[in-house]
Amino acid sequence: MLDDRATTDTTGDTPVRLGILISGRGSNCAAIAQAIADGKLKGCEIAIVICNVTGAPGIEAARKFGMPVVTLEGRGREQRDHEEALLALLKKYRVEVVCLAGYRRVLSARFVRNWKGRMLNSHPSLLPSFPGFNATQQALEYGVRIAGCTVHFVEEWVDAGAIILQHAVEVLDSDTEETLASRVLAEQHRAYPEAIARVLSGEYEAVGRRYLRLGKVEAVPPMRSQEAVADTASITAEN
Amino acid sequence: MLDDRATTDTTGDTPVRLGILISGRGSNCAAIAQAIADGKLKGCEIAIVICNVTGAPGIEAARKFGMPVVTLEGRGREQRDHEEALLALLKKYRVEVVCLAGYRRVLSARFVRNWKGRMLNSHPSLLPSFPGFNATQQALEYGVRIAGCTVHFVEEWVDAGAIILQHAVEVLDSDTEETLASRVLAEQHRAYPEAIARVLSGEYEAVGRRYLRLGKVEAVPPMRSQEAVADTASITAEN
Repeated sequence: MLDDRATTDTTGDTPVRLGILISGRGSNCAAIAQAIADGKLKGCEIAIVICNVTGAPGIEAARKFGMPVVTLEGRGREQRDHEEALLALLKKYRVEVVCLAGYRRVLSARFVRNWKGRMLNSHPSLLPSFPGFNATQQALEYGVRIAGCTVHFVEEWVDAGAIILQHAVEVLDSDTEETLASRVLAEQHRAYPEAIARVLSGEYEAVGRRYLRLGKVEAVPPMRSQEAVADTASITAEN
Repeated sequence: MLDDRATTDTTGDTPVRLGILISGRGSNCAAIAQAIADGKLKGCEIAIVICNVTGAPGIEAARKFGMPVVTLEGRGREQRDHEEALLALLKKYRVEVVCLAGYRRVLSARFVRNWKGRMLNSHPSLLPSFPGFNATQQALEYGVRIAGCTVHFVEEWVDAGAIILQHAVEVLDSDTEETLASRVLAEQHRAYPEAIARVLSGEYEAVGRRYLRLGKVEAVPPMRSQEAVADTASITAEN
């Protein structure tokens, strides 16, 4: 069901409602929560954490933070059914911006399109280098000396949306996959809240694929009610 | 003709003889020369600068530095003939390590194989992102926030050899292709002498595609006389 409250209000004082999708440790989710708790990331709150893996350690971690958590087991479920349930949950919790945080399931183009400019992901490489899985292993095998992480908008292609920010991490001669992955992850924990702040600031704008600070522009694009209604209707009609 | 003196001596005090190949401004060539003049890059000297474009500004720049320069016009010449002339020049000047510095002609696999571990290139991106031409334009169009440069060994595939080092350059919101390219170039000027120093230090070793400082190992691999003789012979035989 479409809820009128799902329309984003970024002009008032109402915090923007984040929905965080996790599959594992949820350490990026915890980093976002910590940044909010510390007052470093303002103007938003975590409305819901959704985990698609039963018993994932991130569930307990989110609970300890006092965040509402829902497990929506993805295994053995058709993508369409899973995404329909996911969409219903996001609407129920009036989520305005979705943050993928180690979410290990590719979302359909259809689902992603509906969240254009409102869905973020963090990837452990300097994209476009090393997209997909095992980014750190790929980077070490390639022999790069500068690794890093990317926070980007999610588009229909994996790891292909416009880049919000990137942080570089130097590769050391002594690095193993474990030590490099650990430093990149620490950098992701700094980068993700900073990227969310950029998106919510209303000062950045996409110019082609570049995401630039140009001054006061519209922040998170308001969810277009007609489109959302049409989408809900089509899901209903198809089932 | 193979000259016995072409065998690299990195254990003694004889400076390693560099051959620098340019096509344009030769600013990386000048940066290497400056680093040698300043005593920042030790144990080597520029034996010859070879330019494949008649009248390129880098020729005059190299002359001002007092470096021997030869123009070996590449236009309208078969690759094999051009490379044979190039090889003859490198041998005449007893070049031990070749540095491509904005050299805009792809060398054949046959030529490159003979210089394995002894031919370097500088590329204005953080490889494997944005190989080939117009790296800065590619980077800006992709919207990366971290750009940079790479010095790597040259292998048979363009921009694909093991990485010696990389330096990161932050992309600014205000960057145009010109301003970003200029900062990346400045970083290349720092990186190239540093990379040459690593190769000559005899402390780095290729482990897979990683180039690691592991302590004292053999520096520039000595040119294998048999292989070189065979190569020269085959060129002669084929013509």
